[in-house]
Amino acid sequence: MAQQAQVGLIMGSKSDWPTMEHAATVMDELGVAYERRVVSAHRTPDLLSDYAREARDRGLQVIIAGAGGAAHLPGMVAAHTTLPVLGVPVESRALSGLDSLYSIVQMPGGVPVGTLAIGKAGARNAGLMAAQILSLSDAGVAQALQAFREKQTQDVLNSPDPAD
Amino acid sequence: MAQQAQVGLIMGSKSDWPTMEHAATVMDELGVAYERRVVSAHRTPDLLSDYAREARDRGLQVIIAGAGGAAHLPGMVAAHTTLPVLGVPVESRALSGLDSLYSIVQMPGGVPVGTLAIGKAGARNAGLMAAQILSLSDAGVAQALQAFREKQTQDVLNSPDPAD
Amino acid sequence: MAQQAQVGLIMGSKSDWPTMEHAATVMDELGVAYERRVVSAHRTPDLLSDYAREARDRGLQVIIAGAGGAAHLPGMVAAHTTLPVLGVPVESRALSGLDSLYSIVQMPGGVPVGTLAIGKAGARNAGLMAAQILSLSDAGVAQALQAFREKQTQDVLNSPDPAD
Amino acid sequence: MAQQAQVGLIMGSKSDWPTMEHAATVMDELGVAYERRVVSAHRTPDLLSDYAREARDRGLQVIIAGAGGAAHLPGMVAAHTTLPVLGVPVESRALSGLDSLYSIVQMPGGVPVGTLAIGKAGARNAGLMAAQILSLSDAGVAQALQAFREKQTQDVLNSPDPAD
Amino acid sequence: MAQQAQVGLIMGSKSDWPTMEHAATVMDELGVAYERRVVSAHRTPDLLSDYAREARDRGLQVIIAGAGGAAHLPGMVAAHTTLPVLGVPVESRALSGLDSLYSIVQMPGGVPVGTLAIGKAGARNAGLMAAQILSLSDAGVAQALQAFREKQTQDVLNSPDPAD
Amino acid sequence: MAQQAQVGLIMGSKSDWPTMEHAATVMDELGVAYERRVVSAHRTPDLLSDYAREARDRGLQVIIAGAGGAAHLPGMVAAHTTLPVLGVPVESRALSGLDSLYSIVQMPGGVPVGTLAIGKAGARNAGLMAAQILSLSDAGVAQALQAFREKQTQDVLNSPDPAD
Amino acid sequence: MAQQAQVGLIMGSKSDWPTMEHAATVMDELGVAYERRVVSAHRTPDLLSDYAREARDRGLQVIIAGAGGAAHLPGMVAAHTTLPVLGVPVESRALSGLDSLYSIVQMPGGVPVGTLAIGKAGARNAGLMAAQILSLSDAGVAQALQAFREKQTQDVLNSPDPAD
Amino acid sequence: MAQQAQVGLIMGSKSDWPTMEHAATVMDELGVAYERRVVSAHRTPDLLSDYAREARDRGLQVIIAGAGGAAHLPGMVAAHTTLPVLGVPVESRALSGLDSLYSIVQMPGGVPVGTLAIGKAGARNAGLMAAQILSLSDAGVAQALQAFREKQTQDVLNSPDPAD
Repeated sequence: MAQQAQVGLIMGSKSDWPTMEHAATVMDELGVAYERRVVSAHRTPDLLSDYAREARDRGLQVIIAGAGGAAHLPGMVAAHTTLPVLGVPVESRALSGLDSLYSIVQMPGGVPVGTLAIGKAGARNAGLMAAQILSLSDAGVAQALQAFREKQTQDVLNSPDPAD
Repeated sequence: MAQQAQVGLIMGSKSDWPTMEHAATVMDELGVAYERRVVSAHRTPDLLSDYAREARDRGLQVIIAGAGGAAHLPGMVAAHTTLPVLGVPVESRALSGLDSLYSIVQMPGGVPVGTLAIGKAGARNAGLMAAQILSLSDAGVAQALQAFREKQTQDVLNSPDPAD
Repeated sequence: MAQQAQVGLIMGSKSDWPTMEHAATVMDELGVAYERRVVSAHRTPDLLSDYAREARDRGLQVIIAGAGGAAHLPGMVAAHTTLPVLGVPVESRALSGLDSLYSIVQMPGGVPVGTLAIGKAGARNAGLMAAQILSLSDAGVAQALQAFREKQTQDVLNSPDPAD
Repeated sequence: MAQQAQVGLIMGSKSDWPTMEHAATVMDELGVAYERRVVSAHRTPDLLSDYAREARDRGLQVIIAGAGGAAHLPGMVAAHTTLPVLGVPVESRALSGLDSLYSIVQMPGGVPVGTLAIGKAGARNAGLMAAQILSLSDAGVAQALQAFREKQTQDVLNSPDPAD
Repeated sequence: MAQQAQVGLIMGSKSDWPTMEHAATVMDELGVAYERRVVSAHRTPDLLSDYAREARDRGLQVIIAGAGGAAHLPGMVAAHTTLPVLGVPVESRALSGLDSLYSIVQMPGGVPVGTLAIGKAGARNAGLMAAQILSLSDAGVAQALQAFREKQTQDVLNSPDPAD
Repeated sequence: MAQQAQVGLIMGSKSDWPTMEHAATVMDELGVAYERRVVSAHRTPDLLSDYAREARDRGLQVIIAGAGGAAHLPGMVAAHTTLPVLGVPVESRALSGLDSLYSIVQMPGGVPVGTLAIGKAGARNAGLMAAQILSLSDAGVAQALQAFREKQTQDVLNSPDPAD
Repeated sequence: MAQQAQVGLIMGSKSDWPTMEHAATVMDELGVAYERRVVSAHRTPDLLSDYAREARDRGLQVIIAGAGGAAHLPGMVAAHTTLPVLGVPVESRALSGLDSLYSIVQMPGGVPVGTLAIGKAGARNAGLMAAQILSLSDAGVAQALQAFREKQTQDVLNSPDPAD
Repeated sequence: MAQQAQVGLIMGSKSDWPTMEHAATVMDELGVAYERRVVSAHRTPDLLSDYAREARDRGLQVIIAGAGGAAHLPGMVAAHTTLPVLGVPVESRALSGLDSLYSIVQMPGGVPVGTLAIGKAGARNAGLMAAQILSLSDAGVAQALQAFREKQTQDVLNSPDPAD
């Protein structure tokens, strides 16, 4: 991570890492530089404000924020920056991430959070979507994405029998 | 409202007032002094931090926060103060306030929000619960509450036939 | 528990204890004196009435009530007292505590229950919120809360890498 | 209603009458004697206890209880009597009676409430089910029920074209 | 089961027995005579019609029907008899019995099913409610119920500390 | 309807017609012969059995059944025939057709109902799907369907601007 | 599978096979010829279009498509063919297949998907329903279905005691 | 719209325009160039493939896709392009857009859709988020966004009394 981070990958708690590492993995595959950090909306609200407010000036281009339950992190980050913010609803115990999903996606008009699926698939897709955004001005990432997609398609075509 | 406000009654948008005024009305009835203000988690996050952080020193004892949809206001206020915070889920259009409810009530361990019912009944009960908290050290409010409850009971007893 | 209890911690069944003990633990940490008891709305309705009616005179200042499923305990306690009542929806088997949540939070205007999150986080937060209420007139608890919050923040700041 | 009431038809609020009158209407049709009364679990908890405890000795054989939202009435009545209690979830504003349904039907083992559908159909069916219970020892009601069912069937058979 | 059965305890599949046996157990405790049988609405619809139509003449007084998923058994039995029918929503795999609950409780006006909670508690309560109905004309069952309730209350009072 | 009906279009109540007529309309457009009838699972269970059992011998090839709430009609028809049965969940008042949907779609293994969307779109699609089934052996219907689809596509292409 | 396939059994991912094989098993039992294949709406959209567009000409008569989560496969197949398409919602992790169900069943008017239950029962019923459709013009399948149903009924009748 | 469109604003039906025009309005305010078009996943699947596949080469940088019900449009567009795709769940009749939300947000790992809130707020935020993405390389848009946010904040601060 010596390279300037393009993406800030943050989450409300260490316990979100087994979900959110799927965003990290796919960004590693695609050559996207990121930094990772625990930032808690409720336990470290001042850190949150500072992190979000300084993000653009620090050179970040996208923020991925994962959280579960009340899951205020993505929306509050979005309130403090005009960078695109991607939210990942982490699966919660009682409500299986439905609370996380509603809290993240139902933002009022004026402050958007681009929300991905609940859990690991959502984290992976947040990483991919960050790459898709970066690909608009970064030809390397664009190429990596294209290859990633082609391989993904080929994998299905190569192994067409579900019972194998 | 010349009297020192005991309760801060805030909400995310003016459009929440038709719900939240029911908190105001019942506090008026019980002689609870309050101040009211629009504070938006997403549009005025810095105001939110300042309001919550200064609340105890300004003499407030309870904060009532109403919001709809992603409804981050109550939880973010609670993140910045150790005063008791009461949350009112305002009815939202598509999800009827279920999103508001989940966002407010499903706070992580460490930062509580006492959540009331969705909509007007919840706002009214937030006002009552603020009064119940104040009544622990304010005999006038305690007495007003007692009278309020007795009248409420008597009203049912005086008019027992549902078809009247 | 030789000290006069400030908080009554009750629950509908012994099987609620693994959830509700998280309220007890945090109150122990903060120096809040409490008593604990099984009080069942459906199996011991007379005990419930007596407990709630006598609570204020016995010196209790807050009642925390945990229950699952139909979960009538918090609301019925609130019907018999003007003390602040905090409700904890215990996770139920089939509906994961959604039934508990609705039964506790959707109280009609006139009788409030301050509801916390489903399960352990909610129980922990009920204990914290009781402390926040007591802190209005108890400087020791106020101080303990302040320290609790600061440590909570510091713990996140001290360990910022989610992958550690 | 000079006749000894066989069924107690109670509800939490006058506003439940437009729903609950459908129980009354069908009992009128079937010759079932009933009494009606507002009994609020939260506003008149002592009346509730007294009503339920004395019901069997007063000659009631079934209690129908309708309530909305937290809807504790049917379950608390059931806690105080061994008469069969039928619960009707009244449609609530935000959650369309889903909260009422969960609060009424999800009773813990030991204290049953026989729950009917949300709203008017449920109220009508509560009246019918009360009659079905009475019909076990009341030949007049049994006959009336039989005729009611036959007419109900015949009405469909007589008018088979949905587009008429 | 040499005694004339008072209650018909039926279910849609053998796989419902681990739930429905809780109805049997409590009826055994209370001295209620019952018969048990698998009757499937979808696999044996003719058996269902015959069983329900002949139930009253065979001397049954209550039918308890348990089913999961689409759960048509209770409602279709109710369509063929004027005996009181109690429905138990068996917990289903994907939807946790919510499908079972809706299918059983949401009967149209004209054909009631008294619905109990999802799963074991509901089965137990179906047995109890059948006993409550029988108790109206069977003093032995009435007495057994009274004793059952008193013991249930006493058990809570004898063991008040949840942490024991 | 002088022609031998290919499809039986039935529904639980006349009040379902404003929904179910959309199935009729599209079958008229496609030249599919159908008959229509009110058949109530709960009010006319014997008619239901007879109708379903005789359907194949009477020359019907598909049955479309619409119902709301507990919505047992489609599943019970399917229990009595091996013809393909299509179910349409009619929108219900309190639960917006979610109860209808669960009751119709969650059939146990062994007795299928092909379920369409809640409400008018589902009724329309039931008519279309009946035609698609008939098209396997009826070239006229196959051709009509093909034309229907092409026109449907063309209508979108001809009017591409949403703001027109 | 040397025989011309009558049914195309496709699914979005190999991980759907443990669910979808239940469709295969029942078609094997009934002598229905099918082919099986992984076709992913999102990873192989062009394969999807080709598969669906050519299906009728290749002699397929029914397509069964299983998918989980966003589950676009059945609906997109239906968009490209006028063959009857049966959709099976595969159980998803966080939302238990509710997302799959909604995505499959809530098709707009104009393009139907006959939807079966979530999970294995739905897959089994998709196979059965395919057979029911084929049975309209294939006497062998019709006979096999009839025998299948009779055995299914007999199995229940032969083993009536749920506690055995 | 003489300017090269930066954003493709598409929707499944003209009836989605009253929702989706809020995306257009905010892009107009921010100086973002867009084109708008009806593209139906189910009625014009080939147009969908072509539109998505050619989007990047035509110079589009973001695609906003709105749809209701099964709502396959955003996900299928995302399957055909590596441009960032933003999905707006349009409020549906029976399920209030919950079906739309699940269908759009629950995409499998590999193909992301950044999902916004149900309805108008979501459409407005899709426009804003498109602008936020463009702002990474378009200083004019970045400035417009900054001004937009500041005005939004100021509007709240200028009118703090909710009862005004």
